Amino acid sequence: MAVQFAKRMESLNASEIREILKLTQSPDIISFAGGLPAPELFPVKEIEHVTATLMREQGPKVLQYATTEGYLPLREKIAARMNRKFHTKVVSDDILITTGSQQGLDFSGKIFLNEGDVVLCESPSYLGAINAFQAYGPKFVQIPTDDYGLVMEELDNILATTDKVKFIYVIPDFQNPTGRTWPMDRRRKFMEIINKYEIPVIEDNPYGELRFEGEIQPSLKSLDTKGLVVFLGTFSKTFCPGLRVGWVAADQKLLDKYITVKQGADLHSSTMSQCQIDKYMDLYDLDAHVVNLVELYRKRRDLTIKTMKEEFPDNVKFTNPEGGLFTWVELPENVNARDIFMKCIEQKVAFVPGGAFFPNGGHENTLRINYSNMPEDRIVEGLKRLGTVLKQNL
Amino acid sequence: MAVQFAKRMESLNASEIREILKLTQSPDIISFAGGLPAPELFPVKEIEHVTATLMREQGPKVLQYATTEGYLPLREKIAARMNRKFHTKVVSDDILITTGSQQGLDFSGKIFLNEGDVVLCESPSYLGAINAFQAYGPKFVQIPTDDYGLVMEELDNILATTDKVKFIYVIPDFQNPTGRTWPMDRRRKFMEIINKYEIPVIEDNPYGELRFEGEIQPSLKSLDTKGLVVFLGTFSKTFCPGLRVGWVAADQKLLDKYITVKQGADLHSSTMSQCQIDKYMDLYDLDAHVVNLVELYRKRRDLTIKTMKEEFPDNVKFTNPEGGLFTWVELPENVNARDIFMKCIEQKVAFVPGGAFFPNGGHENTLRINYSNMPEDRIVEGLKRLGTVLKQNL
Repeated sequence: MAVQFAKRMESLNASEIREILKLTQSPDIISFAGGLPAPELFPVKEIEHVTATLMREQGPKVLQYATTEGYLPLREKIAARMNRKFHTKVVSDDILITTGSQQGLDFSGKIFLNEGDVVLCESPSYLGAINAFQAYGPKFVQIPTDDYGLVMEELDNILATTDKVKFIYVIPDFQNPTGRTWPMDRRRKFMEIINKYEIPVIEDNPYGELRFEGEIQPSLKSLDTKGLVVFLGTFSKTFCPGLRVGWVAADQKLLDKYITVKQGADLHSSTMSQCQIDKYMDLYDLDAHVVNLVELYRKRRDLTIKTMKEEFPDNVKFTNPEGGLFTWVELPENVNARDIFMKCIEQKVAFVPGGAFFPNGGHENTLRINYSNMPEDRIVEGLKRLGTVLKQNL
Repeated sequence: MAVQFAKRMESLNASEIREILKLTQSPDIISFAGGLPAPELFPVKEIEHVTATLMREQGPKVLQYATTEGYLPLREKIAARMNRKFHTKVVSDDILITTGSQQGLDFSGKIFLNEGDVVLCESPSYLGAINAFQAYGPKFVQIPTDDYGLVMEELDNILATTDKVKFIYVIPDFQNPTGRTWPMDRRRKFMEIINKYEIPVIEDNPYGELRFEGEIQPSLKSLDTKGLVVFLGTFSKTFCPGLRVGWVAADQKLLDKYITVKQGADLHSSTMSQCQIDKYMDLYDLDAHVVNLVELYRKRRDLTIKTMKEEFPDNVKFTNPEGGLFTWVELPENVNARDIFMKCIEQKVAFVPGGAFFPNGGHENTLRINYSNMPEDRIVEGLKRLGTVLKQNL
């Protein structure tokens, strides 16, 4: 005998992108690679106050084991907030607290996927979701997208002709990596198709509240009449990612599966982190905090787009997102963004090569730029460096 | 089409024990069912101080995304502490922080198990581990135990005659549920057999520091010459479970797999929780805290054993553990502890029926008693009630 791993570990080992991203972590590199919020807006003093209040008012309860479903007052606040922001009609019993929304992705794979099953997703789609699902051995079928998100005729065709589809994974608001948002008519059309085929939907919505202009769109969950949509939310982008608090919102029949899987996975998420967010929402105004985030990120988005227009060659295209953290860049088709990446590392600037967002490969002429994490002068300096490398190599 | 779950969800749905345990949560019930630490010793004021210090000294870093491996200063402290307490020779690079040690159990299943593979475990074994592994569809083979833990001749026989064994899961110190501890000669013999078959070992050690008398035994990890032992540790029993901080300690080749899986599962554990424990260990004396826990739990163990001797019928056997949180009770073979449980609920006292700790069924005449969580007067009152039910039904 000898040590033998599960078959699923073979596909998980293959991720070359992790090695690439390690190169971006040197402190002298201006990195547009991560998806980190602006640390200067984290509510540091407020968290100190909130924790002191918690320890004095509730003490040991905040440090003890707790229920798998999560802290009830927080689940109530999440339900009320979702209904207000995303037009849903959920109650606290529809909410399971997770260790970040990444855990909701992992659970979705665990609950639905046998090896060889099919996951539908946008083309491109979020790298972290692809990684999470990959552990369960699915095939990915990517649905074509345009400037307004998923192309619904293509979705209908693919559902009509593809076996073993277990769910479709989508990010309708300020998508990662493209920054694109589905307009209302697409959302309605999407739900028509979903209802026709009765296929579960994983709606990932980490950025929906971070809208720089226009109205927040109704979530797919709010249009869900058959209990098919699983909504993944998180405090990572509206509050602090280091607390690792996200949630799953789904109808009871589906949520029960997530609760069962959560119990085996980590019993429950940090009671401390959950109570800190809950108490913050009691003592402070999270909506006002989100307004501050939106103002800062809008400024950085504006500066990023303006600088790219000035510094990038004319044959480079990029999206102009109405919210969220990312813009998506398309280089001429014959250019490989991984080669550009290596040249950029020499010039101390980094991004994520876009090929990583396509589970079946291709599209190596794309890349993702984050604009939320850096002060304005670094954004300009970094994009100038990137522009110089592009001019030299296109 | 319609909503279809993965095959693994069928076995996960079957857990009748979860329904039973819901009955124990009513506040008027004296429950010996949980495995909760004593809340009166939680370091409430210290956590307030620690968090204030963290916010002033490090601020945003504690609230930001962090590395999958975990907070480096904490990993260094864990390595040093393990080496001191459990005679290992690990370094920080051998440590991955997990969301409680439950997550290390789930990852072990994910990394090693294809459907139909074999997991070896003690008979009985920890319910939460069985649940975690079950999600990956293994067969369980239970190795017989006696008063000194695993029977090594049986292990050797089973390894010689069983195919597709992917790992063995053991709790050598104050086992859950029996409270039993393996003596040194068994540990050496175990590692001889393990080295002969080169089979990975998941050594779960949540209670090792909670020893009421005698010396802490060297961990299996400390006797591991071939890099086969994965050690799971946690702060849940020595500090606070609500922070959900545990760890995996393993050689690089194995730990790399855990890190890969961790990234897909939840990116990383709460930065806040990790930093709180780390800063506590800077500012306070965790060893002194553990001494206080040991003193309290020893007193409660003594009282539990004394009261059971006085109140239980003579044909009821139970273990007298040298540490940890549990004693294991064996009723006469014709008695079903689930029936006794239902009668006890009527008398407002609860425990865990022991059958749940045997993945292949049987042994319904057993039950588990926790003594760490309750004040002394409640322990006596609860055991008197349980004794009365036993006397009426045996």
